[in-house]
Amino acid sequence: MLTLSIDAMGGDRGLDATLPAALDILSRHPQVGLILVGDARRIEARLKEAGAPASASKDRLEVVNADQVVGMDESPAVALRQKKNSSMRVAINLVKERRADACVSSGNTGALLATARFVLKTIPGIDRPAICASLPRLGGRTYVLDLGANIGSPPAILLQFGLMGALLIHCLDGVAKPSVGLLNIGVEDIKGNETIKAAAELFKRSSLNYVGYIEANDIYTGDTDLVVCDGFVGNVALKATEGAAQMIMGAVAEEFTRNAITRAAGLLARPVLGRIRRRLDHRRYNGASLLGLKGSVVKSHGSADATGFRYALEVGIKEVNKNLVSNIENALTELPESTTLPA
Amino acid sequence: MLTLSIDAMGGDRGLDATLPAALDILSRHPQVGLILVGDARRIEARLKEAGAPASASKDRLEVVNADQVVGMDESPAVALRQKKNSSMRVAINLVKERRADACVSSGNTGALLATARFVLKTIPGIDRPAICASLPRLGGRTYVLDLGANIGSPPAILLQFGLMGALLIHCLDGVAKPSVGLLNIGVEDIKGNETIKAAAELFKRSSLNYVGYIEANDIYTGDTDLVVCDGFVGNVALKATEGAAQMIMGAVAEEFTRNAITRAAGLLARPVLGRIRRRLDHRRYNGASLLGLKGSVVKSHGSADATGFRYALEVGIKEVNKNLVSNIENALTELPESTTLPA
Repeated sequence: MLTLSIDAMGGDRGLDATLPAALDILSRHPQVGLILVGDARRIEARLKEAGAPASASKDRLEVVNADQVVGMDESPAVALRQKKNSSMRVAINLVKERRADACVSSGNTGALLATARFVLKTIPGIDRPAICASLPRLGGRTYVLDLGANIGSPPAILLQFGLMGALLIHCLDGVAKPSVGLLNIGVEDIKGNETIKAAAELFKRSSLNYVGYIEANDIYTGDTDLVVCDGFVGNVALKATEGAAQMIMGAVAEEFTRNAITRAAGLLARPVLGRIRRRLDHRRYNGASLLGLKGSVVKSHGSADATGFRYALEVGIKEVNKNLVSNIENALTELPESTTLPA
Repeated sequence: MLTLSIDAMGGDRGLDATLPAALDILSRHPQVGLILVGDARRIEARLKEAGAPASASKDRLEVVNADQVVGMDESPAVALRQKKNSSMRVAINLVKERRADACVSSGNTGALLATARFVLKTIPGIDRPAICASLPRLGGRTYVLDLGANIGSPPAILLQFGLMGALLIHCLDGVAKPSVGLLNIGVEDIKGNETIKAAAELFKRSSLNYVGYIEANDIYTGDTDLVVCDGFVGNVALKATEGAAQMIMGAVAEEFTRNAITRAAGLLARPVLGRIRRRLDHRRYNGASLLGLKGSVVKSHGSADATGFRYALEVGIKEVNKNLVSNIENALTELPESTTLPA
């Protein structure tokens, strides 16, 4: 049996998302135990209300009390120093104490990164954990890292991102040799800055299935499994996409509700529009992995609902089942010395 | 009267786009003259075929021969050294010789940047021209620069981008004091790297209507007129958006053609879908300005059709009408010495 600790109070929806997701996971995975961390009285009351869990899975659900909650806008420093009994911190402590195999939280990214790094520590050679998540593409998904934890990453760090990301994809999607590209502003060798060019040389000499430079549009229209970039750039790519998608979907909604005729057309097109929305549903892509820590931590989107949070829990389960953390530790140890240290 | 020189052979469609756009402009703007640069025999034949232009505007249309064409994949170095009689080069020469007030080309970006910089030279204090274009947002448009010409821009260069972009928006949209933001991966003061933080200090002390840090999603959902960033980051944001939009529109097309029922729904929804496409039509946003040169040069998208190319020509007309280049020269001269030179 494997056990996940859940920051039950984290995210915009707190228990409204985490509790139903947890119960859903218990019924889907008979080999998984869960520890809900947060306001124990409220959690117990809500569980009672839901008449859950069914007796068969009762022994696989534990509640651990934590008095504090990290706010969604709270600074990492405040979370670290003043919230030592927060649901986030206690959930991560459980991984450190080996009572849980992985932790999942919808709490704020900065606080989660800082707390996970402080409590669990990073693997030797890794300075800060990287954030890796997948995005939808035509006929599949593309993983991108780093999505914002590391700013100004030197070539050797980009190579670590590549190795960790490839191992993650192997765990989550069972791809034996994921294709890996470096994000650049053109595909020709002369494009990009000195960091990218030096990274390309490291990637070529590595054991990775390196396919060369990737332009940002190919995240969505190409066929590369993993796109590696500095955290600043990755974060911009991710947020630009979110904004553009929101604008497009906003335009669709506006045009279909313009008048009685367009509303009628919208009614008739509703099943199709629903299918489109489901295909692009970001909840299916929820669950970003914090890579490079001595323990599994999965970051769920702050606005995730129960469905979205369940996907994040599934990521945690797969990481543990496939021993992601020890695989990463082994892979990085085998790197030549010159590439395990920041250049 | 003002005169535009047109790289008539440039872009994926060459004369198929540039000729009809030119004739359209002549009929819309009685005060504008055009010089079509390219294969004179082919251009004359095509004009004859079209029975154009009408006699009233004949004296406002000139054809200048150029034997060569810069290929869409040709390197800037090859364009500069081996294509001295290309339609692109000759069109830019006409601006240098003051026979034209601005040049518009759909040719490849690298070659256009290099040729424009070589022939026209940059304004003192500017190393490379920056690329500025507008993107659609709910209820307006957001200008972004740099979109890929400058990699690793120091704070003083980012400030120049801000000043040039604000003047461009004033010219094109008549906004008196455009709001200006710096692209960052968070809105708090502690976010970003040292370059962004130093740039923020320069922006605060400048005459710009500076509104602070902007996250990439707010390019599409916010209300800031101008977003300033380094060229690498801007290019990634732009291409990520293009890719995401293409994927979303691809999913829409696929779902509406899935079977007879969805096709019928698509037929009924067609007017609405058409309106959505028109709203997001990138052709309306075509025409990126190369800023910082001693002359106006507008870059049209390589795949622009006649409608798209016409929008790029309109950008050139507005830049000239409002004296963009001399306004930029004046604004940069008035900068304190410490901010006109790269930090």
